Amino acid sequence: MHAVTAKDIEAAAARVRGYVRRTPVMTLTPEVELKLEFLQVGGSFKPRGAFNNLLARKMPAAGVAAASGGNHGVAVALAAKVCGVKATIFVPEIASPAKIAAIRAQGADLRIGGARYNDALAACNDFIAANGALSVHAYDSAETLAGQGTVALEWEQQAEKPLDTVLVAVGGGGLIAGMAAWWGGRVKVVGVEPEGSRALHAAMAAHKPVDVDVASVAADSLGARRVGDLVYPIAHDSVAEVMLVTDEAIVGAQKALWTDLRVAAEPGGAAAFAALRSGAYKPRPGERVGVLLCGANVDLKTLAALAD
Amino acid sequence: MHAVTAKDIEAAAARVRGYVRRTPVMTLTPEVELKLEFLQVGGSFKPRGAFNNLLARKMPAAGVAAASGGNHGVAVALAAKVCGVKATIFVPEIASPAKIAAIRAQGADLRIGGARYNDALAACNDFIAANGALSVHAYDSAETLAGQGTVALEWEQQAEKPLDTVLVAVGGGGLIAGMAAWWGGRVKVVGVEPEGSRALHAAMAAHKPVDVDVASVAADSLGARRVGDLVYPIAHDSVAEVMLVTDEAIVGAQKALWTDLRVAAEPGGAAAFAALRSGAYKPRPGERVGVLLCGANVDLKTLAALAD
Repeated sequence: MHAVTAKDIEAAAARVRGYVRRTPVMTLTPEVELKLEFLQVGGSFKPRGAFNNLLARKMPAAGVAAASGGNHGVAVALAAKVCGVKATIFVPEIASPAKIAAIRAQGADLRIGGARYNDALAACNDFIAANGALSVHAYDSAETLAGQGTVALEWEQQAEKPLDTVLVAVGGGGLIAGMAAWWGGRVKVVGVEPEGSRALHAAMAAHKPVDVDVASVAADSLGARRVGDLVYPIAHDSVAEVMLVTDEAIVGAQKALWTDLRVAAEPGGAAAFAALRSGAYKPRPGERVGVLLCGANVDLKTLAALAD
Repeated sequence: MHAVTAKDIEAAAARVRGYVRRTPVMTLTPEVELKLEFLQVGGSFKPRGAFNNLLARKMPAAGVAAASGGNHGVAVALAAKVCGVKATIFVPEIASPAKIAAIRAQGADLRIGGARYNDALAACNDFIAANGALSVHAYDSAETLAGQGTVALEWEQQAEKPLDTVLVAVGGGGLIAGMAAWWGGRVKVVGVEPEGSRALHAAMAAHKPVDVDVASVAADSLGARRVGDLVYPIAHDSVAEVMLVTDEAIVGAQKALWTDLRVAAEPGGAAAFAALRSGAYKPRPGERVGVLLCGANVDLKTLAALAD
């Protein structure tokens, strides 16, 4: 029995309705459909899981605490503000200015420190132990997985024709595990990771979560050192394969998304598209592929420099 | 009898299918639905009209010529490239770097000169007289109006619930006339113009197209000096009202679209949203309002400076 079932995801969808947006899909070519999840409140898919945590669980007086590369922090801060709960958010120094600004704008108590996501997580865990705040984990909580799984539930309702395959970027694995739990093998779920941040690829090879080194242009959103303990068994059963893409392919996808679609994607938000565009994932003739564009919390100056 | 009928728009939709994208809609609030037309090929709605011209009309050896504030030029250049036709595009000096780069990228012969759209139009007309190229007018051709009208046909098919009202930005009026011709009064069509570029507002007051002065942050897309002769009669019959918005409201809408939706809109593409956001257009309780986000050919550096 996995940490999250289709029934949990249906319950999450009912719970977060009205708090998150139903993001649109667009046919790019007869074989490729994009889901524009970067249009979500907070600029990424993360509020689905964050709202599901805050709406499903009992809140202590100390409120909630979360560690994040940035997007989960934005999401928890936003959900806490909407729900009237105090939030303390821990991010590493690599968090992008766009994400830090968005967390501050929600009125959360923001603490910046450490080089990578896992440093922020350690600081967050110390804080929770001392203070009694409720942990809202970025990917290793059943409520988070069920919330992220609503992307798949929604997409299945929207897809003009059934999809054969979906390409999904992977950090700690909460999104892909939630989506794979929804589909349970009915759709081929393919994970996409940067070569320099391959926590799921390594877990699949080792048959369990293992630590990896992280160095990638997408580290601020996909830079988890290992996938979640709840994530791995679902991925093992329901993720068909995990592709690796170079940082160069990710940046190329960001440029192409801006030039051809006027979509401002962050590196992590462009990784799934990079797998298709670079040929890392090669569909069979006629295979209908869905590509999830999952985040747009990019600094515009950085994107402007790329696009020049 | 108007220059374009619902039947012409249906024919145009069949003609351009496969050449232009079916752009998605998104529910922003229970009362507000956005149509994300900035995701169109070429970054604005203009390729609908451009492809309809190139596919419906006989092409001379000299190819096509068009004058444009920028977006129509991008669209004609793109359609000409796809259709294998030579294109000569005339733009004024205020055309944005993003648009100039996009026209050049399509391989069109680009000629930059004059302060405003109408200067480019005069140069284009001289060229056509000397050279025999086919004019593809940005808004005063029946094929252009029918092509732009496909936005409305498509939106009506997509809207989750019927819309009461749509807000549409106006330059020379081709888009709003095409859309109003489709709906023919079934939906309340509201035009939105910058205070400093009010060609349709002035025409409605004078009961005919008249020249206006143009000075607005949105001049590079909405800066026509007068509405088209084919446009005015349709607007008279089927556009309910024309709102004016300040440049400040337009820039505020651009900022909000980026901050809240991660949408990078150009000033003209944000004008309709500005009318709602600034309170210039006040819906009745329960009124379902559609807002067309019609263009994203913005320079990222300029947008970055706004968003800071």
